[in-house]
Amino acid sequence: MNGPEIERLIQLLGRLPGLGPRSARRAALHLLKKRETLMQPLGTALADAARAVRACSICGNLDTIDPCSICSDHRRDAGLICVVEDVGDLWAMERGRIFSGRYHVLGGSLSALDGIGPEELNIGSLVMRVSAGGIREVIMATNATVDGQTTAHYLAERLAEHDVPLTRLAHGVPVGGELDWLDDGTLATAFKARRAL
Amino acid sequence: MNGPEIERLIQLLGRLPGLGPRSARRAALHLLKKRETLMQPLGTALADAARAVRACSICGNLDTIDPCSICSDHRRDAGLICVVEDVGDLWAMERGRIFSGRYHVLGGSLSALDGIGPEELNIGSLVMRVSAGGIREVIMATNATVDGQTTAHYLAERLAEHDVPLTRLAHGVPVGGELDWLDDGTLATAFKARRAL
Repeated sequence: MNGPEIERLIQLLGRLPGLGPRSARRAALHLLKKRETLMQPLGTALADAARAVRACSICGNLDTIDPCSICSDHRRDAGLICVVEDVGDLWAMERGRIFSGRYHVLGGSLSALDGIGPEELNIGSLVMRVSAGGIREVIMATNATVDGQTTAHYLAERLAEHDVPLTRLAHGVPVGGELDWLDDGTLATAFKARRAL
Repeated sequence: MNGPEIERLIQLLGRLPGLGPRSARRAALHLLKKRETLMQPLGTALADAARAVRACSICGNLDTIDPCSICSDHRRDAGLICVVEDVGDLWAMERGRIFSGRYHVLGGSLSALDGIGPEELNIGSLVMRVSAGGIREVIMATNATVDGQTTAHYLAERLAEHDVPLTRLAHGVPVGGELDWLDDGTLATAFKARRAL
């Protein structure tokens, strides 16, 4: 009904996470109304990013340079590696400015259900980075899900022989969180891991 | 932190309706992961649509041909004009397949607050279509908001001299709607406009 160009645009926008068919239509209409200020710049930005962005050959982060800006930043501590599942998790850590070491992006988590084994993840390169020496701590910042924790335990086994201290993020009550709304598992974990006041 | 290409992409995606800063980051990451299957096709689709899509010179609909596929479809009744605020409203009517006449897209509604007067809308061209003759009914399908209803009343005044029957969409309980959740205005309107069972 709208011509194939509009239909194709709606269909592709609908495949973005967070946009259903209805909001994809709204987004397409919004783009068509802001042709000069949004639609053409977005088209260019997509082409630019598709051309320029690559995965870092050391850590797996996405950046326009390789090694990425984090791996090539000599002010960052090369002796600390924070292992995350996804680039989005790395971005979350960086937004918080809570870590000044380097990262390793696995590209997912082990999942028997989805058929993702160790070969599908960037695990070999992590073992190589650790076995090359000079690493004082590996922080497992995988998700607190079953798959994420399984992945952390698997990595711990793989890295055991290298005698590097392994740590994981603390579990507990989220800052600002109310006990009443917390799930039982988190509450029990927070209680067991209670600290001196 | 991510290179200017990624930041620019996130910033532009965040200007789409329905995507906030957080979901724009998720969308950008999703695009970077599906470079061949989604990112490049979307870039092409944006460029194609920006080039090919134009506003219909008769009714204001967006299409790749001018007059649009609705205005140039001779099976559709040229004696009926359904006036809508926006192309999105036209799409909604077409999805429902409830109308087989032609449309007129105003491009918004009168709004004193936003400084939108009759000159900012496609009202002159509607008056011309009606005064050209051959129109048996004009259906005001503007939104049931204050601005939408004001616009419908203004149009009724402008079209009064042409002696064409004007109608508006019925107000009432939405099909499938529960009375308990309905606002008082709609309930009162539905009660007043009650029909024989």
